[in-house]
Amino acid sequence: MPVNLAPIDPAALLPVAGVTLSYAEAAVKKPGRKDVLLIELAAGSQVAGVFTRNRFCAAPVHLSRAHLASGQPIRALVVNTGNANAGTGEDGRQRALAVCQAVAEQLGCQAEQVLPFSTGVILEPLPFEKIIGALPQRRAGSWADAAEAIMTTDILPKAASRQVELGGKTVTLTGIAKGAGMIHPNMATMLGFVATDAAIAPELLQGLLSTAADLSFNSITVDGDTSTNDSFMLIATGQAGNAPVSSADSADYQALAAALQSLSIELAQAIVRDGEGATKFMTITVEGGRSREECKAIGYAIARSPLVKTAFFASDPNLGRILAAIGYAGIDDLDVDQLSLYLDDVLVAVNGGRNPVYQEEDGQQVMNKSEILVRVVLGRGDASATVWTCDFSYDYVRINADYRS
Amino acid sequence: MPVNLAPIDPAALLPVAGVTLSYAEAAVKKPGRKDVLLIELAAGSQVAGVFTRNRFCAAPVHLSRAHLASGQPIRALVVNTGNANAGTGEDGRQRALAVCQAVAEQLGCQAEQVLPFSTGVILEPLPFEKIIGALPQRRAGSWADAAEAIMTTDILPKAASRQVELGGKTVTLTGIAKGAGMIHPNMATMLGFVATDAAIAPELLQGLLSTAADLSFNSITVDGDTSTNDSFMLIATGQAGNAPVSSADSADYQALAAALQSLSIELAQAIVRDGEGATKFMTITVEGGRSREECKAIGYAIARSPLVKTAFFASDPNLGRILAAIGYAGIDDLDVDQLSLYLDDVLVAVNGGRNPVYQEEDGQQVMNKSEILVRVVLGRGDASATVWTCDFSYDYVRINADYRS
Repeated sequence: MPVNLAPIDPAALLPVAGVTLSYAEAAVKKPGRKDVLLIELAAGSQVAGVFTRNRFCAAPVHLSRAHLASGQPIRALVVNTGNANAGTGEDGRQRALAVCQAVAEQLGCQAEQVLPFSTGVILEPLPFEKIIGALPQRRAGSWADAAEAIMTTDILPKAASRQVELGGKTVTLTGIAKGAGMIHPNMATMLGFVATDAAIAPELLQGLLSTAADLSFNSITVDGDTSTNDSFMLIATGQAGNAPVSSADSADYQALAAALQSLSIELAQAIVRDGEGATKFMTITVEGGRSREECKAIGYAIARSPLVKTAFFASDPNLGRILAAIGYAGIDDLDVDQLSLYLDDVLVAVNGGRNPVYQEEDGQQVMNKSEILVRVVLGRGDASATVWTCDFSYDYVRINADYRS
Repeated sequence: MPVNLAPIDPAALLPVAGVTLSYAEAAVKKPGRKDVLLIELAAGSQVAGVFTRNRFCAAPVHLSRAHLASGQPIRALVVNTGNANAGTGEDGRQRALAVCQAVAEQLGCQAEQVLPFSTGVILEPLPFEKIIGALPQRRAGSWADAAEAIMTTDILPKAASRQVELGGKTVTLTGIAKGAGMIHPNMATMLGFVATDAAIAPELLQGLLSTAADLSFNSITVDGDTSTNDSFMLIATGQAGNAPVSSADSADYQALAAALQSLSIELAQAIVRDGEGATKFMTITVEGGRSREECKAIGYAIARSPLVKTAFFASDPNLGRILAAIGYAGIDDLDVDQLSLYLDDVLVAVNGGRNPVYQEEDGQQVMNKSEILVRVVLGRGDASATVWTCDFSYDYVRINADYRS
């Protein structure tokens, strides 16, 4: 079961002016579930995106990148689950384009004004006729419906809202995300969509998104596998009536960025809390590094280690496995004799060796918890980074051995 | 159970002139098992080593490197299981040195002429008094005893021999190895020792060993975790009576190198076959790359992926997961449209997409086997690399969740 993740409260998810949501049941993989989501945008909306760096990126990722680059105003995002349309070559791109064309016909726009997204099994042809056939039957939905419509192996839907005052006007941000396995984003999560009604200068949108992605979806891992379909999109409809945010140095920008980061971190953590087979939620903070990059590399080495993750699953304070992971993180000039390791407030290792007064009972008490902080202090600089991960359980193996059946 | 790994046949393990083996039961972690091995070398022996690149490398790795670098002739190697003496700082180095001193006293040599090795739990003080106390009680042993004395979570001991003619003289090579988890060597396996009675010029020994390590222990992974203690040692006693091998271009060198590589690959594969929880043995060959390095990076990305490994455990031809791993291997200019993927002889993907005539039944037939070849053809050069790995099962989680209890 997800670790300290509450079911979403539909009433707490705030509509975003200029965004219209609808969903359909297209039986892409199985009948009887919401598996197609359409996000329609009012004229004047802007969209920015960050995408997987996986070289085998999916056909819809190719198309979304190209359509965004075309400079045409984006009018809709269409999402299907049940099939990733990845590893499908040119034929896959044609199928994704056919879906965009069908949406465009319904909305009266160009195919280039539609961004496609897919998630599910790789290497199987997208049943695009099913999706196109279901589009006319779609029903108006809420953000809660939208969060449900993009789920695959997720146990719970993931969605959240924020509000912030910009120049006396209330601006809303609402986001949804999905993903439970193949989670080690290189640009974004499997799928994340945040919409705001804030007005903001077009040239600022990408930077706003990229910083939030780095601090949230690009700071989590479930299994170390980077998906072919990871996409994180930011929509700004500009309908809140605020004076457009026009400089990254302004207080309005900072307030909007803080709200977006907080929302993105909540969604990214929700993915880890609902990680396949997760029984524990770990925050790994690396401090005192020379750069954020080296801190993140060490954090990810710990977060990815199957030996560390199985020890957490077993509540076993076998903490040498954490030191081993730090050691192979690729920081060639790391002087481990300067290093300290804490488990919550318990000082486990100091000067690169076991803390002489460390008692295993103290480590055990922390390991018994469901939320654990691993803190590494490198003692060689001022940089830091935090990553989040879950443990590695029998259920991870069961889920991934059974996924297609 | 190990995948197609036979118990060793003690009669097939050939003695190596100039090497004397003995073992003891020191109860380092548990009583009643061989846990200390002493390898004594005749005067005139040479030793070369490759060691883990883990920055948290163990105290004995520090000492072995320093003692080798001192240039003193090495007279003995002493190995203990049950405790890795890693993450133990300066105190750990003192304890490892105390063991070397005790061995040196018994043999009448200097502590610098003894190389120490440890494997087991990290972050716990080495009970060196137990090891020192057990040394006088040690018993003469065979290579089969030696292979047993270095086991930890291994189910079966690992050992093999080769013979080769050099200038009309028969030269023998016998090696042992251990390791089943925390296996993703960056220089060598957890522990591997090969001895030969061949005479060879000292300056050639390191190159001979490094090439063999790259093709064997540095081409396997069980769980992606690089140990703190990985060491692979080559001993040459020079007692075979062959004219010393004096050039890397000579036929004798090539014959000796081929025998060493073959032996090392057998030992490295034995580690994978006995990988924690393994039910399948996978050979991953990447061809048509621009460099061996990029081929190996792709091979390791596939071999490390928990999603790939759980799919193999389930005999599920969910082969898109292999494409996803290829895509995130870090080859930024990889053109996946040139890529083909085979499972044994079955062509699964071509031009970066699903082979139009691929039938899932064909993939299923291969996946049902216990030995599987994954072949990736990149179509961008002449380089290739092969790595070996095992699947990821419930038992991997069980073993690593229980390891210390």
